Amino acid sequence: LPSKLPQIGTSIFTVMSQLAQQHGAINLSQGFPDFNCPPELTDLVSYYLKQGYNQYAPMAGVLKLREQISSKTEKMYGFSPNPDTEITITSGATEALYAALAAILRSGDEVIVLEPAYDSYVPAILLNGGKPVFVPLQVPSFKIDWQLVKAAITTRTRAILLNSPHNPSGAILSASDLTTLAELVGDTNIVIISDEVYEHMVFDSQPHLSLLTQPELAGRSFVISSFGKTYHATGWKVAYCVAPPTFTTEFRKVHQYLTFSTVTPIQYALADFLDNQEHYLTLPAFYQAKRDLFHHLLQDSGFTLKPSAGTYFQLVSYENITQESDLEFARRLTTEVGVAAIPISVFYHQQTDHGLLRFCFAKNEDTLQAAAEKLCRL
Amino acid sequence: LPSKLPQIGTSIFTVMSQLAQQHGAINLSQGFPDFNCPPELTDLVSYYLKQGYNQYAPMAGVLKLREQISSKTEKMYGFSPNPDTEITITSGATEALYAALAAILRSGDEVIVLEPAYDSYVPAILLNGGKPVFVPLQVPSFKIDWQLVKAAITTRTRAILLNSPHNPSGAILSASDLTTLAELVGDTNIVIISDEVYEHMVFDSQPHLSLLTQPELAGRSFVISSFGKTYHATGWKVAYCVAPPTFTTEFRKVHQYLTFSTVTPIQYALADFLDNQEHYLTLPAFYQAKRDLFHHLLQDSGFTLKPSAGTYFQLVSYENITQESDLEFARRLTTEVGVAAIPISVFYHQQTDHGLLRFCFAKNEDTLQAAAEKLCRL
Ligand SMILES: CSCCC(=O)C(=O)O
Ligand SMILES: CSCCC(=O)C(=O)O
Repeated sequence: LPSKLPQIGTSIFTVMSQLAQQHGAINLSQGFPDFNCPPELTDLVSYYLKQGYNQYAPMAGVLKLREQISSKTEKMYGFSPNPDTEITITSGATEALYAALAAILRSGDEVIVLEPAYDSYVPAILLNGGKPVFVPLQVPSFKIDWQLVKAAITTRTRAILLNSPHNPSGAILSASDLTTLAELVGDTNIVIISDEVYEHMVFDSQPHLSLLTQPELAGRSFVISSFGKTYHATGWKVAYCVAPPTFTTEFRKVHQYLTFSTVTPIQYALADFLDNQEHYLTLPAFYQAKRDLFHHLLQDSGFTLKPSAGTYFQLVSYENITQESDLEFARRLTTEVGVAAIPISVFYHQQTDHGLLRFCFAKNEDTLQAAAEKLCRL
Repeated sequence: LPSKLPQIGTSIFTVMSQLAQQHGAINLSQGFPDFNCPPELTDLVSYYLKQGYNQYAPMAGVLKLREQISSKTEKMYGFSPNPDTEITITSGATEALYAALAAILRSGDEVIVLEPAYDSYVPAILLNGGKPVFVPLQVPSFKIDWQLVKAAITTRTRAILLNSPHNPSGAILSASDLTTLAELVGDTNIVIISDEVYEHMVFDSQPHLSLLTQPELAGRSFVISSFGKTYHATGWKVAYCVAPPTFTTEFRKVHQYLTFSTVTPIQYALADFLDNQEHYLTLPAFYQAKRDLFHHLLQDSGFTLKPSAGTYFQLVSYENITQESDLEFARRLTTEVGVAAIPISVFYHQQTDHGLLRFCFAKNEDTLQAAAEKLCRL
């Protein structure tokens, strides 16, 4: 069978998690919490399971959940998408991203991808016949250089893919980024796909500037968020996409034949739990404390910690420790030191190596402490 | 946004289920049980939720579940696929079908589709740049005319899509079908995609002849099955694909970027529950009793019931009742008579109308009785 994705192997998250497991390393590579989701939420899922909410959910998602998303979006971003025509529940944010690309791309269409880029973006573009056009983020700030974006736009540009808070760097979009973007695409047909799955993890009292806060941008964007990230349940694979009605119509045509619908009892449970705003409003402080603890624990280490404005990831430079490539060092760190991390070069199409690793700090205090102890020995 | 699927609207299942709800009709249209899955199974899911099995499952699926699938396949079909290299858990059979097509199709590749065809097949082919080549099943037997299949094969034929037990007709593949198919594709590169989600619903003591029972066919097939169908939990969206290692490698590359992984606590629960073979071994008798009850209840009605060898669907002819098109009659049946059904013409690319409707009999006795009472008034 000739491969349609000859360059693509097993994703770095699987590779590093398996390596961590084989070597009994503390796994700070793949991004997921080592603590459980709120017990009220698992109780609600159990309740709906028992009550028999186990058949197909509506294709667009459970209405009650879409209504809750609408009011949450209104509270957070001053915009209330219509549950009937602008919100679709998906089987994870990965599906949402794929469906958005499948809905808009035709053979040869270009998509601007900012690097370092989350690892599903490029394969999803390629599988849908698109052509990724790469624009590097500035190093070390990981801010967008809008001149470079502008220069990358051609008549074939169909979409720009954004991600804020940004995985792996933790950088976030500023108000001026949104203004510049709105100007840039103002009189084009360019669509924005905005991956905002870390929307509730923004630190230091900064707001998350969703594309939904800007009516001009909201009117041309697929905005994707994830309950897995917000509720510490990455394995539930429940996410959603907010997009204008014409976009949502096409998005749902794809979603309908990609997965059709998403796990029903969890949707009902999330709908009830979303009434409880307390939870997601506490997330910034909760994860900021983890970030700060991790910084504190590594302050006397050989690593240099980069700013992390959002996400549950921390970039570190290791130039004071070794000259190895980030891939080599990430492997050795896992197999010899006992802490798994993600090398950043895998997020660049040319494996650009800035000597940076990514640690996930969505972990219990003792996990972070045990990891830091090992890391400080270097 | 110009549509990539201009012919495609909302799926018939959503349309009819919504119409049923609006009119308070008994919903025998979209296929799903109106009874709950086994309580031991929901208890197991609740257990794993509480225990914190809520983070990403491995991309290929929980190993324990893949191992159970392997031994079940051995018991059922005399073939034990390798859990590491030949089994992948997916977010529903719809995802598995889409991933298989996405893994193999290049622009212009032809896929032979037998009509009437389940509604996701053609859009999934189109979205992946393929070209469906339609071959009608024989009417009224819904058996495959292999001469027609042979005549449809060209140098561009990449795959043949099979579905047994067949939705909507309930027809099943025979031993001679498998032999003929093996001969037909023997010296070609044609891949088989076999949708076997109703594998445990085959009646009258007939066996389900999985493509996995034939080594030659197993070696060139993606075979798809579904836990939602088997365990009365269509809303869980957990299914799997068995395919040879080279196929599975390409399949997983797509799955990895389509949904990445599938809901974790349910996978662990299914792995435990699969040890309990009793359940799936009782399914043929369980559903045959429902089929027979439904036949009995409609014996004095104006409908003519077609043979149903498998699935939980029953085709009926209504020529003694009305000359309406199946679409018109299905609507009127829902809005005026109070029973929703699926018109079969929607499963033909040219809306071929044989005057047939499909009822789902995966329902409690009183539901079937109430529906039959209404249907007998016609
Ligand atoms: C889908 S596994 C990867 C999880 C994640 O988002 C990350 O580690 O960046
Ligand atoms: C995915 S909804 C359709 C369910 C089904 O398989 C059918 O009714 O044929």
